[in-house]
Formats: sequence, C-alpha cells, structure tokens
Amino acid sequence: MLTTFTSKVTKLKDGMQVDTEANGFKILFDEPEKMGGTNQGINPMSALLSVLGACQAIVASMYAKKFNIEFSDFSLEIEGDMDMAGVMGKAEVRSGFQEIRFKMHFTSDNTEEELKTFAKFIEKTCPISDSLANGVKLVNTGIIKN
Amino acid sequence: MLTTFTSKVTKLKDGMQVDTEANGFKILFDEPEKMGGTNQGINPMSALLSVLGACQAIVASMYAKKFNIEFSDFSLEIEGDMDMAGVMGKAEVRSGFQEIRFKMHFTSDNTEEELKTFAKFIEKTCPISDSLANGVKLVNTGIIKN
Repeated sequence: MLTTFTSKVTKLKDGMQVDTEANGFKILFDEPEKMGGTNQGINPMSALLSVLGACQAIVASMYAKKFNIEFSDFSLEIEGDMDMAGVMGKAEVRSGFQEIRFKMHFTSDNTEEELKTFAKFIEKTCPISDSLANGVKLVNTGIIKN
Repeated sequence: MLTTFTSKVTKLKDGMQVDTEANGFKILFDEPEKMGGTNQGINPMSALLSVLGACQAIVASMYAKKFNIEFSDFSLEIEGDMDMAGVMGKAEVRSGFQEIRFKMHFTSDNTEEELKTFAKFIEKTCPISDSLANGVKLVNTGIIKN
C-alpha cells in the first residue's frame, strides 16, 4: 500500500527565492550571494543534508528500544561534496553530490559494537538514505503552459 | 574543484523532533501524530520533495535567459510514493521513495516545445534531480560514543 507525499513549489518574483509548502510546513529557499541569490533562505544542497540527517535521527528514535539501545543524546555531522562545474555547465561532471559522509555521535552506555550494528540498521532503514543510495525514478508528468 | 556542504543535526530530548542547521539556516523536523510524532515540524519525506522542487526552480531562474525563456510565474507540483511497510520492517520492499513525479507550470509566451526542451535541461542539470535519479555514495565515517 503506497503512501503519497506532496509539495507545492512556487518561484517568487525576484531573484532565486522559492517558496515551498509540504504537509502544512513552509520552507523558503534561496542561494547565497556568491551563487547569485540573496541568502534569505536555505539553499537546496545544504537542505538535502539536513533532511538526510533528520531522517536518520527519526529512525534512531523509532528503533532504539527494539535494539536495546539507550542514548541521552544523538547528533550527526553530515557533509557532501559536489563539483560546481557540473551545474554551471563548465565540465562533463555530474551536477549532483559525488559523495555524502555522515558521522554519528551517541551519548550512551551501550557498547561501540552495539552502536555500530544499530548505525548500520539506521542507514539501511532510513527512507532518505535509501532514496539517495539507491536512486529514485523521477517522472515529469507534464508541462502546463498558462 | 569540489565544494563541500555541511549540516549539523541534533535529536531533541522528547519524541521525534530533530533540530538541524545548515549554512546558517535551521529547519525543525518532526513526524505527524499518526507516525508517532507531535507534528511540530516538517517530516523528512515531504521536505525532500520541497528541496527537489526548489532546486529545479532555482535552476530555471539561472538558465532561463540562456534558453530565451521568459516566464512571469513558475511553479511545480511534486509527489512521491513510498510503501510504509518498508521503513516499518513489515515487508521486503525498499524503505525509500519508489517514484517521484513532478509537473511544471509556466506562465510564459514561449512555445510548448521550447518549454519542454527547457524542462528536460532543468531535470538533467538540477543537482538534487541528479542526486536522486542517479544515486549518491553514502559513507559512514564513524560512530562516536560519548
């Protein structure tokens, strides 16, 4: 049984600002000034890393008990590399992320081995990790001209 | 030459709420109540669709002039399907999105053919589209136990 998520995305009049609303929550996007934007909102590349980390943290919350893991704090540092020449059309490199790295911090009395097993499970189970690691079929369903 | 983006992700004390900060911008994540959360922030699956659409809209802004495209409005409807049984561990299905669809709306005097060509370029060039369509290498660089 499939669940369908949706988002409505509207480019604002000036510059690169984009308004989005999904499940009742708005996020304003923009680009930093060095990219030609006005830095009034988060840029998509940085936001993707936040989405990935948040998803891993939520999966950790959901499954800690099942794995007999207890932690008082859980945080992640996430970083991803891209070659800007791709999106700028200046080189034949992919435009997206080439690699995304994450480091998990647990404040916990569990053993390192238990935490490593749990971390592997999180990575495998997190829907955003799976979407990124294994790719998703993207389908353009139409261009509407008004 | 690689550019590295980063995010810092912290699970909050109660429930599923997660605080994130990337490039100076915070996003609070949570899950809806039916998923066990408190619906105080956006859920990662919905947020991913907003990130994808925002990126496509920004690429449209960047390249319209080069393609001789003029639009007074540009918006997208994005939707993505997942089978919740995957993340719940109740079936051998992938946990991530199975398909993401997007529809683009242009208010423009360009022809439909010109807009279609432009749309294909956006999809190919958008770094988030590329990351999702072609996948990204994810690397766990360590578990830090405090």
